[in-house]
Amino acid sequence: MTRKIILDVDTGIDDALAIAYALGSKELELIGVTGTYGNVLVPTGTRNALAILELFGRTDVPVFAGPDHARAKESFEVLEISQFIHGKNGIGEAQIPDAKRQVEAKSAVDFMVESVREYGDDLVIVPVGPLTTVAAAMEADEEFAANAHIVNMGGALTVPGNVTPWAEANINQDPEAADLVFRNARDITMIGLDVTLQTLLTKEETAEWEALGTVGGDFLAAATNYYIGAYDEIAPYLGGCGLHDPLAVGVAVDPSLVTTLDINLKTDTEGETRGRTIGDETRLNDPVKTGHVAVGVDVERFLAELMRRLTDLAAGTAAR
Amino acid sequence: MTRKIILDVDTGIDDALAIAYALGSKELELIGVTGTYGNVLVPTGTRNALAILELFGRTDVPVFAGPDHARAKESFEVLEISQFIHGKNGIGEAQIPDAKRQVEAKSAVDFMVESVREYGDDLVIVPVGPLTTVAAAMEADEEFAANAHIVNMGGALTVPGNVTPWAEANINQDPEAADLVFRNARDITMIGLDVTLQTLLTKEETAEWEALGTVGGDFLAAATNYYIGAYDEIAPYLGGCGLHDPLAVGVAVDPSLVTTLDINLKTDTEGETRGRTIGDETRLNDPVKTGHVAVGVDVERFLAELMRRLTDLAAGTAAR
Repeated sequence: MTRKIILDVDTGIDDALAIAYALGSKELELIGVTGTYGNVLVPTGTRNALAILELFGRTDVPVFAGPDHARAKESFEVLEISQFIHGKNGIGEAQIPDAKRQVEAKSAVDFMVESVREYGDDLVIVPVGPLTTVAAAMEADEEFAANAHIVNMGGALTVPGNVTPWAEANINQDPEAADLVFRNARDITMIGLDVTLQTLLTKEETAEWEALGTVGGDFLAAATNYYIGAYDEIAPYLGGCGLHDPLAVGVAVDPSLVTTLDINLKTDTEGETRGRTIGDETRLNDPVKTGHVAVGVDVERFLAELMRRLTDLAAGTAAR
Repeated sequence: MTRKIILDVDTGIDDALAIAYALGSKELELIGVTGTYGNVLVPTGTRNALAILELFGRTDVPVFAGPDHARAKESFEVLEISQFIHGKNGIGEAQIPDAKRQVEAKSAVDFMVESVREYGDDLVIVPVGPLTTVAAAMEADEEFAANAHIVNMGGALTVPGNVTPWAEANINQDPEAADLVFRNARDITMIGLDVTLQTLLTKEETAEWEALGTVGGDFLAAATNYYIGAYDEIAPYLGGCGLHDPLAVGVAVDPSLVTTLDINLKTDTEGETRGRTIGDETRLNDPVKTGHVAVGVDVERFLAELMRRLTDLAAGTAAR
């Protein structure tokens, strides 16, 4: 049986890899892509998502636009560091045609709410950007928090953050949304920097995509090479780029890729550590644990799964 | 076979419980107690350690004094919060006679260095205060870091700190010492707030010690009741006092009491998060993990072990 999935993306290079991972996974049925802000503005991100879906021949997957800024703010501008990592167009300056279609008229929030109502336990929501849209869905429907299954890319529990010494980029964009989601979600798996910085891709792997001689392979290679170049600057000790967003999709397919710590989570919204994800000390001894933080990952197996799925997917696209 | 243990304490109410746990454990041979500052000044802590050892008839265990202040400071004064938690005399204003003997002439640093040289893998060092003495031992002998086995009470990885939102009290006293120890120790188990705030004692348990009608039982109950009272003020949501220091001794006896995350640790010494214990991102992908952070604990079993050992020990002391 396939599992239904909604990908909530700010596309973004690793978001593009996450979309490709979902498309390449027969275990998943991607029922919709919701677009948020973060690596890019919402219109740039949804444009990229639509273009990528068309590139891979999946114009059957609808794309919805979510809120375009954080709860506590009036607007959003792309951070300099995000632009450095993902390029001005969000996909590492890789050039792929605009899709022929547009985003849906329905909002991302309504789509999430309706999907959880309709599919319940058969659906997993995978947010890999700020949690603004998910938080809005929780507020829009009081049963959402209890019924949604969420595998979230974001946060850092056992390692420092990547935008401040304590905050990870997605959480940092909207700490209030993250706190609302972590405190209320009945089932949330956190795929944070703890594990995503262990899963690294290098130009050795992207060369395999290039060698396919297809437009899909060329796109994956070009975008990812840009990303690897950025990582060489910002975290040279890693020796590759972190596979943040695709790892969340990988775990949605196969939870056994990671080992998790069961813990009730919160996000600091005030004080010096604003944006930090951490255990909620007031719920430390609550026997019910709603959060599941990935603290270990089978790196080798995940990389093999990623390469197999993305390479097969890209092999099926048109010759360059 | 018994395992040799050195307890490095700033005695302290839960330090007193840790000493009692060690004395009550046939699996351990307490070869020495080293005194550091923290909950109290070094002279107060060593006075208490000597008095407690005499109360339990263990005048064979030598007590050594360590450095009396942090590496980066010139002196040390007891924090107001420490005095609130442990009382002015460090043991909750419980009154026990001064010991007839004194601290040894040898320094705590020399004792640690010589003991690791002599006993190697047969010895475990359990520091439950600031890591100043252990850091000094590492600097005094370049082989110490590679040969010492350390089970440390201190730090907080997955939950907030207790003196700042990121720093735990012991680490906060001397972040430079903690950083040196975490980065260099070949084998360090961290028993932090992650688990020690899960293991709670209430007046229901201390009533059992009172009921013994012995001087040992009276002491344990009086000191611990003071500690429980302080916890009712500072963390009423817990519903008891955290068994920080005795849990570290419990793990030295039986590592299976906790589940651990293998990770290479550091302590922030600069910036807003000074005193935070966190994974070292530059050693995230190093296959050798020198740190083992307790992230889960068998609460019921530990409490049963603690009550059995301390009650038996106290039962053997003189009638009140």
